Amino acid sequence: MDSPTRHFICLAHDVPLEGDFSLDDLAGGAGRLDAIARSIAAAFVTSHGIRTYVHAHVVVQDAYTITFDGSELRRLNPDERSTAALVRRALESREEAIGAMPADIHPGVAGYRRGLVGTLEAIDDGPVVQLHEDGEAIVDVAAGELAGAVFVLSDHREFSSAEQAVLEDRVDRRLRVGPTRLHADQAITVAHNYLDTDGYTAF
Amino acid sequence: MDSPTRHFICLAHDVPLEGDFSLDDLAGGAGRLDAIARSIAAAFVTSHGIRTYVHAHVVVQDAYTITFDGSELRRLNPDERSTAALVRRALESREEAIGAMPADIHPGVAGYRRGLVGTLEAIDDGPVVQLHEDGEAIVDVAAGELAGAVFVLSDHREFSSAEQAVLEDRVDRRLRVGPTRLHADQAITVAHNYLDTDGYTAF
Repeated sequence: MDSPTRHFICLAHDVPLEGDFSLDDLAGGAGRLDAIARSIAAAFVTSHGIRTYVHAHVVVQDAYTITFDGSELRRLNPDERSTAALVRRALESREEAIGAMPADIHPGVAGYRRGLVGTLEAIDDGPVVQLHEDGEAIVDVAAGELAGAVFVLSDHREFSSAEQAVLEDRVDRRLRVGPTRLHADQAITVAHNYLDTDGYTAF
Repeated sequence: MDSPTRHFICLAHDVPLEGDFSLDDLAGGAGRLDAIARSIAAAFVTSHGIRTYVHAHVVVQDAYTITFDGSELRRLNPDERSTAALVRRALESREEAIGAMPADIHPGVAGYRRGLVGTLEAIDDGPVVQLHEDGEAIVDVAAGELAGAVFVLSDHREFSSAEQAVLEDRVDRRLRVGPTRLHADQAITVAHNYLDTDGYTAF
């Protein structure tokens, strides 16, 4: 059974571009990379494996984007530390990314010198959906309308005014997943569940 | 607004009772404590704080139970490492728990010398709900019927036959949260979302 691709763009505002941080201090010196690592894991891992139809894009400081392609990913573990190590390797390889040519980091992981705009332009797929507490209820949109959706989420910081300006041009929908404001990884888990169940109808 | 308590019992099968492991190797030597830490975080943290109406109970090797009481918890961060450090401290204090007297570890965290049966007996609240892929769809049960629910989840291992025997006696419902088998922390996030939205009706 083929699922349409689900894209998740995660905006990492404080992760150091140079990758010069310790894996023992993800919540501190790594700029809350713990939260980004959880979001990547939430996007891909299930109890029995990997969602091969997911692409995740971590946009670091609107300058460098690390993409994870579930169809090619090998050995993505659910723990924060191993995922953070992959992100650090991608940041350390940043000099190898030139123009539209990515740095190859690991099977299914590549780094591109582009920010949010370039990342949105490189994805030619379904509707762009900003997950945001002020959006409409996700249940007001049929799951089928979200085929190929590109979900955009922020980390522990709000969307910046520059990001907000970009998104206002390009976002098709703003959706919220419930009345309780969640962390990005939790919102990804809920969005997956909404699509997995075809809008809470198929269990 | 007062929410009924939500309880989550997480069965940790491989976490060493002595707490003799490194925080740098949660997925290995700590017996997949990374997964347990994520479950604790999923039970409590939202983007803006702590769910004060949650109690989480980590049952380690069916012998020692570490309870977290959201109404008294201080400074629970969402990252795996800091939560794992709390669990390790609780394990190191195990000798201080005698009979029904707990070891006090941290505000809102206590350790008890009891396993699954003792933990279930100590919780006198709503229905006992096993989250399991073979259960009925969560949407077939009104959210209101889950007030005070005691959700029981396993870690990366299946429920043992001893645990299964205990649960067969005491479980009121077996529920599944969707067609995709999820990790325990993800199932907790989805269960919260179901209750937060009053059964996907209130966003």
